[in-house]
Amino acid sequence: MTVDYNQLAEELHRDNQGKLGTSLRHKGEVTRHELSAYYTPGVGHISSLIADDPSRLREFTWTRNLVAVISDGSAVLGLGDIGPAASLPVMEGKALLFKYFADLDSVPIVLDCESTEEIIETIQRIAPSFGAINLEDFAAPQCFEIEDRLRETLPIPVFHDDQHGTAVVVLAALINACKVTGKDINALNIVIAGIGAAGTAIARLVKEYAPGVRIVGTGRGGALTLADKSLNAAKRSLLEEGILEDAPCREFPLGTSMDDGSAATADVTGDAGRDAFTPPSLEDVMCDADVFIGVSAPGLVTVDMVRSMAPDSIVMALSNPIPEIYPDEAAMAGAAVICTGRSDFPNQVNNALAFPGIFRGALDNGVAQITEEHKMKAAKALADFVESPTAEKVIPSIFDEGLAQAIAKVIT
Amino acid sequence: MTVDYNQLAEELHRDNQGKLGTSLRHKGEVTRHELSAYYTPGVGHISSLIADDPSRLREFTWTRNLVAVISDGSAVLGLGDIGPAASLPVMEGKALLFKYFADLDSVPIVLDCESTEEIIETIQRIAPSFGAINLEDFAAPQCFEIEDRLRETLPIPVFHDDQHGTAVVVLAALINACKVTGKDINALNIVIAGIGAAGTAIARLVKEYAPGVRIVGTGRGGALTLADKSLNAAKRSLLEEGILEDAPCREFPLGTSMDDGSAATADVTGDAGRDAFTPPSLEDVMCDADVFIGVSAPGLVTVDMVRSMAPDSIVMALSNPIPEIYPDEAAMAGAAVICTGRSDFPNQVNNALAFPGIFRGALDNGVAQITEEHKMKAAKALADFVESPTAEKVIPSIFDEGLAQAIAKVIT
Repeated sequence: MTVDYNQLAEELHRDNQGKLGTSLRHKGEVTRHELSAYYTPGVGHISSLIADDPSRLREFTWTRNLVAVISDGSAVLGLGDIGPAASLPVMEGKALLFKYFADLDSVPIVLDCESTEEIIETIQRIAPSFGAINLEDFAAPQCFEIEDRLRETLPIPVFHDDQHGTAVVVLAALINACKVTGKDINALNIVIAGIGAAGTAIARLVKEYAPGVRIVGTGRGGALTLADKSLNAAKRSLLEEGILEDAPCREFPLGTSMDDGSAATADVTGDAGRDAFTPPSLEDVMCDADVFIGVSAPGLVTVDMVRSMAPDSIVMALSNPIPEIYPDEAAMAGAAVICTGRSDFPNQVNNALAFPGIFRGALDNGVAQITEEHKMKAAKALADFVESPTAEKVIPSIFDEGLAQAIAKVIT
Repeated sequence: MTVDYNQLAEELHRDNQGKLGTSLRHKGEVTRHELSAYYTPGVGHISSLIADDPSRLREFTWTRNLVAVISDGSAVLGLGDIGPAASLPVMEGKALLFKYFADLDSVPIVLDCESTEEIIETIQRIAPSFGAINLEDFAAPQCFEIEDRLRETLPIPVFHDDQHGTAVVVLAALINACKVTGKDINALNIVIAGIGAAGTAIARLVKEYAPGVRIVGTGRGGALTLADKSLNAAKRSLLEEGILEDAPCREFPLGTSMDDGSAATADVTGDAGRDAFTPPSLEDVMCDADVFIGVSAPGLVTVDMVRSMAPDSIVMALSNPIPEIYPDEAAMAGAAVICTGRSDFPNQVNNALAFPGIFRGALDNGVAQITEEHKMKAAKALADFVESPTAEKVIPSIFDEGLAQAIAKVIT
């Protein structure tokens, strides 16, 4: 199957010479007269109008409908840091999705930059060319600073899809999964495995939407805890802000082997001068959890771990293409609702459910920035789009008619 | 007439929401299966192929057919330094011309930069996104360094159209004007008024094509001379390299009023310790000249100046929209061939005659850089496209069928 897609991808990409082109808004022949209006001398008048009132840029240019898809190629799909050129086909693919699902014009820009500062300043310098910016496949934790700084300094929407697109779809799935299972979303115990770009955004958005949830995050060394001095600032902040629960460490002596096969080597010291301790493992924290959300690694979760969860558990195994646990195994272990990132299983958590509509709405409605409020509304609209949620359908299909428009209209 | 174009420009730009859009190369519906090849998981294979062999970028992406139109908005049309946002409609217009005349995909990028260094490094960083780069409306003399440095460091064609597009079309017009007038192109005395981006490139290309020509350049202070210590490095180099004749200064005492109305204030010292002298005026150097090429200012040239030229003179009054002298006046004064930059007179010297075909050829034929040789070939192809040149038709119309293709095939 994977081989098939590789072959088909080669054929389609070669035969079509890529995926994207430019086109003229003007229909039919351009007369000499019209050319004099579109270009010199007429265009000078348009430039003068914009020079006098910069807000008219979107009235007279394609920026009104234009999203830049920008990446440095540092965290591409399952491929990692492949650099700008090799990441271009992915960004061109994203532009295809923008066009196909939301009729948005979109230009892929890949950056040959050597530092976070270079990335930020380069995007700031080219920003007047666009109506909105979709950041894509930037590695964590740099992606947080890049997005934050651009949001603060640019007058157009900036949205890191790997974070927020995923978070919106996960929240939508969670809302409907609660309807299906009868669970109270504000009383959920949630485990998120993998606190990178996506995991961080999921934790923040779910906690914002349902402040009563308890979320434990896990990494390679087990549950995240403030006792771990090696945590990066982004993860530490999640614990300090109370987005993630600070995992208790006392009962787990150093040297216990971790469930993901790694040894417990984190430099963790118990408070009050006690001996070093290890944090709880993924296996530990999954016990009695209502929800598992994996944005981590293939095969990380065992049948026994799912079996140890609370009744009617919700399992989102989003590692792609190989999930943390396959749906048939999760079902066998008692999961009531199961999502993956794959199109060949039910409930595909796919960013393309969210970002076309979010950008469509942001541009149509002249939104200055996409806020947490917008993301929650988008998740709600996405959840509501499924009229009667079932275990097999907690989120729509990307091919459902009118989906982008339904989301766009709540981004105001 | 100008007002009409302004109104039409406002209508067309507003009704169409700009001039450009993106489109999909894939025709018709995209199935779920095809989407899996265009995007994840199939696209990962394409990225891997490019990571292994970067030369395959153009095989699988739209860069194969893609030109970036890049500007900082520092020297836009007749408007000057209007900045990036206000220049975007012009760059979008240029992208329209690329599409309409050469079926090239083209993306306008405007830069919010504060120095030449910032411009160069920003373009270097975004370059992997494109197949070729068209620099547009960068002010002289910075444009020379920007283009030179980018040509040296980037693996894709870089072409400053304000310089070289104009130069190619002027050379083509000159070749055919010589046929019409029976003049030997290698024996021409040429005056170029305005040694900025375009004037510099015209001088270099004409001198390269016809080394026997004698070219005098003029600026606000009269003819360019090495005795003028205030000349910038770019102009000085033209004189030192022998592209431009070093104008003799002795006979013109300081304080003589210039023909363009300015006072002779240049800090000019005669050699061998003699008194300060002024350079010859435009009026002086036009006397007995075969060719006048104006890329300067409206109304700079009088009927008497043209009358003082050699018989069968060639007058290219390219200031736009108001030429250095109107065609009817130049004709009255004895000019045999007259070109302007305007579409409402015969012989419109329009960059759009050259750049679509040059880039079409560069991308089709995988040309690494556009050389002086390419530009001369393009000018020759453009001249040859007019089967029987007459005084009223020394260059083709931009609407002539097959023009871009005729130029493209010599760019190899």
